[in-house]
Amino acid sequence: MQSERLRQAGRKRVVIDDVWPQIDAGRFPIKRIQGDKVDVFADILADGHDLIRAVVRYRRQTGRAWKEALLRPVGNDRYHGTFSVADLGYHEYTVEAWIDHFESWATGLRKKHDAAVASDMDLRIGAELIAGAAARAKGTDAATLKQIAEEIVSPKVNLDLRVAQALDEKTEALVQKYPDRSHATRYDRDLRVWVDRKRAEFSAWYELFPRSASGTSGRHGTFRDVIERLPYVARLGFDVLYLPPIHPIGHTKRKGANNALNASPTDPGSPWAIGSEQGGHDSIHPELGTLEEFRELVERTRSYQMEIALDIAFQCSPDHPWVKEHPEWFVQRPDGSIQFAENPPKKYEDIFPLNFETPQWEALWQALKGVFDHWIAQGVRVFRVDNPHTKSFPFWEWLIEAIHQDHPEALFLAEAFTRPKRMYRLAKGGFSQSYTYFTWRNSPAELRDYLTELTNGEPAEFFRPNFWPNTPDILHEDLQTGRRAAFQVRLALAALLSSNYGMYGPAFELMDHVPREKKNEEYLNSEKYQIRDWTWDWDVDAKINDAASLAPFISRINAIRRSNPALHKNSGLKFHNVDNRALLCFSKATPDRDNVVFVCVNMDYEHTQSGFVEFSPPAVGLPQQPPFVVRDVLTGVAYTWREYWNFVELDPKKLPVHIFTLELHEVH
Amino acid sequence: MQSERLRQAGRKRVVIDDVWPQIDAGRFPIKRIQGDKVDVFADILADGHDLIRAVVRYRRQTGRAWKEALLRPVGNDRYHGTFSVADLGYHEYTVEAWIDHFESWATGLRKKHDAAVASDMDLRIGAELIAGAAARAKGTDAATLKQIAEEIVSPKVNLDLRVAQALDEKTEALVQKYPDRSHATRYDRDLRVWVDRKRAEFSAWYELFPRSASGTSGRHGTFRDVIERLPYVARLGFDVLYLPPIHPIGHTKRKGANNALNASPTDPGSPWAIGSEQGGHDSIHPELGTLEEFRELVERTRSYQMEIALDIAFQCSPDHPWVKEHPEWFVQRPDGSIQFAENPPKKYEDIFPLNFETPQWEALWQALKGVFDHWIAQGVRVFRVDNPHTKSFPFWEWLIEAIHQDHPEALFLAEAFTRPKRMYRLAKGGFSQSYTYFTWRNSPAELRDYLTELTNGEPAEFFRPNFWPNTPDILHEDLQTGRRAAFQVRLALAALLSSNYGMYGPAFELMDHVPREKKNEEYLNSEKYQIRDWTWDWDVDAKINDAASLAPFISRINAIRRSNPALHKNSGLKFHNVDNRALLCFSKATPDRDNVVFVCVNMDYEHTQSGFVEFSPPAVGLPQQPPFVVRDVLTGVAYTWREYWNFVELDPKKLPVHIFTLELHEVH
Repeated sequence: MQSERLRQAGRKRVVIDDVWPQIDAGRFPIKRIQGDKVDVFADILADGHDLIRAVVRYRRQTGRAWKEALLRPVGNDRYHGTFSVADLGYHEYTVEAWIDHFESWATGLRKKHDAAVASDMDLRIGAELIAGAAARAKGTDAATLKQIAEEIVSPKVNLDLRVAQALDEKTEALVQKYPDRSHATRYDRDLRVWVDRKRAEFSAWYELFPRSASGTSGRHGTFRDVIERLPYVARLGFDVLYLPPIHPIGHTKRKGANNALNASPTDPGSPWAIGSEQGGHDSIHPELGTLEEFRELVERTRSYQMEIALDIAFQCSPDHPWVKEHPEWFVQRPDGSIQFAENPPKKYEDIFPLNFETPQWEALWQALKGVFDHWIAQGVRVFRVDNPHTKSFPFWEWLIEAIHQDHPEALFLAEAFTRPKRMYRLAKGGFSQSYTYFTWRNSPAELRDYLTELTNGEPAEFFRPNFWPNTPDILHEDLQTGRRAAFQVRLALAALLSSNYGMYGPAFELMDHVPREKKNEEYLNSEKYQIRDWTWDWDVDAKINDAASLAPFISRINAIRRSNPALHKNSGLKFHNVDNRALLCFSKATPDRDNVVFVCVNMDYEHTQSGFVEFSPPAVGLPQQPPFVVRDVLTGVAYTWREYWNFVELDPKKLPVHIFTLELHEVH
Repeated sequence: MQSERLRQAGRKRVVIDDVWPQIDAGRFPIKRIQGDKVDVFADILADGHDLIRAVVRYRRQTGRAWKEALLRPVGNDRYHGTFSVADLGYHEYTVEAWIDHFESWATGLRKKHDAAVASDMDLRIGAELIAGAAARAKGTDAATLKQIAEEIVSPKVNLDLRVAQALDEKTEALVQKYPDRSHATRYDRDLRVWVDRKRAEFSAWYELFPRSASGTSGRHGTFRDVIERLPYVARLGFDVLYLPPIHPIGHTKRKGANNALNASPTDPGSPWAIGSEQGGHDSIHPELGTLEEFRELVERTRSYQMEIALDIAFQCSPDHPWVKEHPEWFVQRPDGSIQFAENPPKKYEDIFPLNFETPQWEALWQALKGVFDHWIAQGVRVFRVDNPHTKSFPFWEWLIEAIHQDHPEALFLAEAFTRPKRMYRLAKGGFSQSYTYFTWRNSPAELRDYLTELTNGEPAEFFRPNFWPNTPDILHEDLQTGRRAAFQVRLALAALLSSNYGMYGPAFELMDHVPREKKNEEYLNSEKYQIRDWTWDWDVDAKINDAASLAPFISRINAIRRSNPALHKNSGLKFHNVDNRALLCFSKATPDRDNVVFVCVNMDYEHTQSGFVEFSPPAVGLPQQPPFVVRDVLTGVAYTWREYWNFVELDPKKLPVHIFTLELHEVH
């Protein structure tokens, strides 16, 4: 029975419904970055004709005082207002509303006055309301209000003048400073916003294997080698340098080159088969260097305005210290042996999964948190989490919140290549960013549908996509042809459609494209199982179509991302009509429309495609009317467009991407 | 911080999201009637590859034991199951799910066996799971399970045979009787269903003014006269007889005929100006009869399988006893006088609204509840509530729940002619049925849109429309022409589109159609302000197009409603394509498709309209293939349809409505 709760509503006549945004009735926070505005909507109703006044209340969750911003009606009993979030961490918001007796009365008086039926009684009623505000007011306001209340009922003054004084803007403003909120209704839940630093929303990731970073054939790369690579990665324009696991690699059932079941003695093994007698998740593979050298790498990376992301993969090689120290953290078979990973009938005997149903789950959770704590202590603040969907969802929610308590600046990228609802649930549960299905959305129509799902409605409130054209696990069929245009387009789409993106290099910029076998997305001679010799340190300032490397192209794209704030968020994405299905055209705009970027790409990587595309500056909030000049910021070439529908042509053998901005000066 | 709550999740690996149906996170119940099935959906996820088992738990709210029904996966991590509600009142439901280790193991074993890699170890693991079930089992099941656990690891038996026994259906069924739910996850809220009696969903209302029921010009009608009218109303086929307020009528500022501001001494006044020195909301207007006569009317109405609905209008004439006894329940003006109703600059001086912000709100709430209690004590169980949106929303929610505690059979129809969100909120807050915008949805396209909104998605869970072609307040323009076809079509649409409908008679069946003035929906000589002489007791068995009254048509429509269960709910509504925009074609089907009715109406009330309409029996779940025979149950005429698209022609001067059912016998 709810009777008691309902009785407590008593004199509160306003009801508040359908507050937006909220995720699962406030069970999960929405996400924003520092400096963002939060737009809040609510249905606010009361009986009868009285007017309503409503505010959004918001605060840092740490018990600080509530602040308020007015909500204004936007039609159909819906109200809207905004507040800003400046600090990292949790914020709370809710809605409060009340009958505005003063405005209701003033509106009625205005109508009566217009109909010449206003009376002394009307003014006496208003005087009581104003006197009420006086009683709530402080200082001179109280005296002023008291005086107005007296004057508007003064028999010495003409009725019209008194009505005018009662309805004066200043009277209204003063009364509204001291509203009667004694019967205000508060929405029945406090909702939460989690506020991240900007990199949660705008980041460009470069993945490399440190062991292949030496630049010298036959020599195992080290952290010091990675330090040597930093200027190159920085010149490419990336801001997160992501390293696959750096821990000791198991030797039991170690995989050989190209995932061979039996490794030769010289095979280095997969970095994801974590743990040996040399240590586990808080140790460093000795051939990479020392903890001190790792700390130096972290520090030097920061000096380039980049930061290191570590790969946290919670699985253990049979040689991991935990296997001996904590066999109870694994699934034990009837004979006491530990169960290896399997997906029947396939076996993965080089890996032991953790058992999240162990009775010792609390110790296990703490140990796993300890891994993050350890690397945070070394200066790391960005983590790429391997296969989070194969570990308990409640664990991640607890872990991320626990880390965020002391380190709200920590970021977590979920490598959640899994079914859509699991992917979204990990994001709701705290992951800052997520891998996506981008790699497998390979036509303009598929990308329109997918981005529409990601950037509209509920997912946009908690899910931050991170688009990757390739990873060490995924060499998509589109890239296997080795066509430069495919690499260029997939990179441009990742970088321009999604404010977070990444690539696995140097495989990508060198257009490595040979799969291990047909119909397989694995690279031939994958770095997962062997060391590769790469040529590093390409000249990023070379001509954009330098034959051997995409480095100049990538560097140009990243520079365009940095200098155009429209590309720092996904909220301003809009697709544009075009009469050729091989072309994809979209724009991105900042919330206040002071930066708009318009992109066209040709997704036919073999043939020139052309068509008419609709780009109306007023439709994206810009003032320009045709004719106007657009400039391709990749090539510097300007075009005068004399209509909203304009011709574009993209030759994959030249450059399959246009990135336009509008020239501000007048066209004559 | 949620850490503590999250830590309690501990070993619970399953998470449950997006349970449907639920209204505002369970803040409001969904609604059903006795005997309904409730379809429950949920997203249920766990990490990894393990299989999940899930149930919906449900019970009467009165602390009874939970029952359970299995939820089955329907794709994309969504699960579905059903339960039935037999009793009136609140029921609760929620979802529980757990990792099904036995099924996960059995599925793996099956795959391994198919790949010829099953091992003794696999069976030993399974034996532990089966032994676990044995430990939870009772009686002979425990012994049987123990025996199976032993047999499948017996070294004396061939591995294939042991695998076969482990995977046997009987083994599975027995193990599933005793699942390991120690780490089961329960959805974090209990949701509610409010269950009404069938009349909440299927009802036909006839509104009449008792004072016009005498059948004798110049004599004020009485409850005894209404008793004389019961056989007629019953033969028309209605089951709710709704009376405007029956209380003493105020004389101060009484309105005269046609809403004149000054009444003549013989004007009877509006029944909605409630209260005089003869009493208020719990009294009877003396000219109508006594309380005993009213009770007799209630009883006699029941003997016709009908029931009385009373109009509860919470407003007071200046002569109402409450005005003197409880001036504090009204808005008092600075001079101590009571504020009449107004919508500035208009005044309604014959009415005092109640003040739901009074400090004495508790006494007021109790007094208003007392009005319902009083009439419930006289046998009334159906209430039509006048303008509920001008009284406090929290009050209604409290009131209806309080009445329902002792009288779950009580029904409340909201006369909520107001904005959509207020209309919906009253329904969420407990009103059993609501007036709608039906009267102002006057084209096939508008009706399709409106019914789609009402019968799909959230509103269908809590909002039960009651469609009225006319009311004493609303004589729609479409009826003002007096065209018989307009009356027939509007009544048929109300009765067939909505399982709840009503009409105001005899104005409707006699096609009263003259408005007070042009562009006005008020009746000329409205019964609200004067007594009307009606001819009652028409022969309902006359020819369907009897010249003077629609009684035979209405009686036929109501009989078709009663004998076709498809028309008892709105959930089976489907619109059908037709190539003429003046025609509206729809079907209604029972949940199990054992009754399907197909309707075509011509909404051009002047001209014959014809067209091809698509009606595919398989598309609505019927087995018939063309050719098939449809019979118009209004006229008895049968048609053989040889395609899915068939020709219909409707002449407004004959009969503008087809109501088809399918003949079950074969066509040759």
